[in-house]
Amino acid sequence: MRIRSRRSKRAGRTKADEISREELQLATRNHGMPLEALHHDITPAGLHYLLIHYDIPVIDASAWRLTIDGLVDRPLSVSLDELRSHPAHTVTVTMECAGNGRARLTPRPVSQPWLLEAVGTAEWTGVPLRTLLDDAGLGGDAVEIVFTGHDRGVEGGVEQDYARSLRVEDAMGDDVVLAYEMNGGPLPPQHGFPLRLVVPGWYGMTSVKWLARITAVSEAFHGYQQERGYRFRRDDADPGRPVTRMAPRSLMVPPGIPDFMTRRRTLPLGRCEFVGRAWSGWGPVTRVEVSTDGGQTWHDAQVGPSAGPAAWHSWRYQWEPEGPGEYELCCRARDAAGNQQPTTPSWNVGGYANNEVQRVPVTVVAAN
Amino acid sequence: MRIRSRRSKRAGRTKADEISREELQLATRNHGMPLEALHHDITPAGLHYLLIHYDIPVIDASAWRLTIDGLVDRPLSVSLDELRSHPAHTVTVTMECAGNGRARLTPRPVSQPWLLEAVGTAEWTGVPLRTLLDDAGLGGDAVEIVFTGHDRGVEGGVEQDYARSLRVEDAMGDDVVLAYEMNGGPLPPQHGFPLRLVVPGWYGMTSVKWLARITAVSEAFHGYQQERGYRFRRDDADPGRPVTRMAPRSLMVPPGIPDFMTRRRTLPLGRCEFVGRAWSGWGPVTRVEVSTDGGQTWHDAQVGPSAGPAAWHSWRYQWEPEGPGEYELCCRARDAAGNQQPTTPSWNVGGYANNEVQRVPVTVVAAN
Repeated sequence: MRIRSRRSKRAGRTKADEISREELQLATRNHGMPLEALHHDITPAGLHYLLIHYDIPVIDASAWRLTIDGLVDRPLSVSLDELRSHPAHTVTVTMECAGNGRARLTPRPVSQPWLLEAVGTAEWTGVPLRTLLDDAGLGGDAVEIVFTGHDRGVEGGVEQDYARSLRVEDAMGDDVVLAYEMNGGPLPPQHGFPLRLVVPGWYGMTSVKWLARITAVSEAFHGYQQERGYRFRRDDADPGRPVTRMAPRSLMVPPGIPDFMTRRRTLPLGRCEFVGRAWSGWGPVTRVEVSTDGGQTWHDAQVGPSAGPAAWHSWRYQWEPEGPGEYELCCRARDAAGNQQPTTPSWNVGGYANNEVQRVPVTVVAAN
Repeated sequence: MRIRSRRSKRAGRTKADEISREELQLATRNHGMPLEALHHDITPAGLHYLLIHYDIPVIDASAWRLTIDGLVDRPLSVSLDELRSHPAHTVTVTMECAGNGRARLTPRPVSQPWLLEAVGTAEWTGVPLRTLLDDAGLGGDAVEIVFTGHDRGVEGGVEQDYARSLRVEDAMGDDVVLAYEMNGGPLPPQHGFPLRLVVPGWYGMTSVKWLARITAVSEAFHGYQQERGYRFRRDDADPGRPVTRMAPRSLMVPPGIPDFMTRRRTLPLGRCEFVGRAWSGWGPVTRVEVSTDGGQTWHDAQVGPSAGPAAWHSWRYQWEPEGPGEYELCCRARDAAGNQQPTTPSWNVGGYANNEVQRVPVTVVAAN
């Protein structure tokens, strides 16, 4: 299913452009990353995106223990101090919400109404998950590992603790960590204190926060967040396929200065530089292109290094507009697996993984 | 002008309940404090509310200097190290956006669509403003001090650096500080790095971030944010009166567990405790009352101490519902100046200072 192009959508403001009170309730709780924070290699604390399904749990770290059970030889109950006694491992990870871009879809799937800001890059420090699973002696018949958080709520009519699973082969990756630090400081409450999972390359729903329990199981997990949520479904009857790794995306720092209310940008005439970041969960970013005419023509940006295999790349592009007037700036990324951002999105019931190109309208004005 | 009561508004979902794309753009950038963070005396970094008029400036602290000029005997240009060489002063301050509650008004003033989350309490460390003004030798003919930030944008058609003023007598208060630390760490970029003003008791627009210049002037400042923004106006022609100190407000941690999409709460039958915070910029909180029947009857909550004269008070209230069913929980605060939260708000063009009582619908269910 294809939606109308963004260009035609803009012709008239449709009912679909109106956000409901319930969506607003979510938007005022969950935090986007203002796009000018793309200036930072590592997103400063408090600017990283946040999507919290239920409430942030209040956890007493001194009483907290992590349970490791199911198909293991030696079930474990581990304190935070015991976790900290293992050698620490730090991974730099760009993490994006699977719903990023949802509110740009038509018709708009009703959930957290992200536009483009649901992303951030952090340094996560903790213990490799594999270390703990080796300590517990993972059974040979285990096929998935289920991660259960302390956050509890109702979703789709089902009361639940938030829980997601990973196949054993995905869980045993070198850089899958149980993190107790973010950007060199203690894990903040809203990012999963005292312990969270971090799975590089995957959308954020995978990296379960406020971990309570890790359970090895012998068959695919059927929890709500695996079987109903986070699937690409054409319609309500479609069982769909699972949402996993992040599709490629490039975002730029909107240049110039904004209007408070419309966020419309004004840019003085003259040479300027666009800067941005690009990432993909399917492989390194191999190309970023920029358009200044709404996607009619594309030009290569200069792609810089990333802070690690799972961190975004910086990029830059020099531009000198021909004259004053209206321009639509766009950027798009391609990854080593051959995935490229589309000009028009493909729609799904949950509004996941909409990585259509960013569009930044700017007004170029004669310099004073 | 009075709006229809919240009760009648709820009867049907009106067009006014729909949020525009432009408002959503603001809601995805600006951060509310999820209400369960009311559990914390001091709001953890990253959970404090954020309202950013334009963009977060990127500032090189080593090159940054603060200018103090205008009606002073000795104009100053001060580095961050020079500011840090003064004795440090820490104030614990509850800060709220003047627009908190705006999106609960009907008709809804179109701007950042806050519901209730635009608040937070932080420890701000820096130099008392008075110290710097004394160093510069404030002229006897100065009547206001103008604070100009590095953040630049267009608002109401006017291109501007964000700027606000204070009368000299308000600026010279003991606890008005130029802060370079928040909660014991460096000021984060989004909270005004490297230096911001903090004016206890006033709505947040007063506490200018990313300070560039402090200027003593001989007459009332006529900048946009003083003369057009942040005024209580009945209509566009009304010059209005200025928005200054925070009206009293009480908020509770919504009890029970939420539904993901509706945020509707479910609470098991049995004894429970409501906890919350209350504050006012006009004096200490003297009373917090709770209602469990939508505001028909009110009961005193137990009000605890605050962490300082400008910090919120904790409060608690024990409740045992009569039986399963639907309840509407409310709370309201009164301050020492006699101000009390209203049941229905008074409307103004900018949607400022809507401190109508919080309402939390809950479904009480028989315990399993």
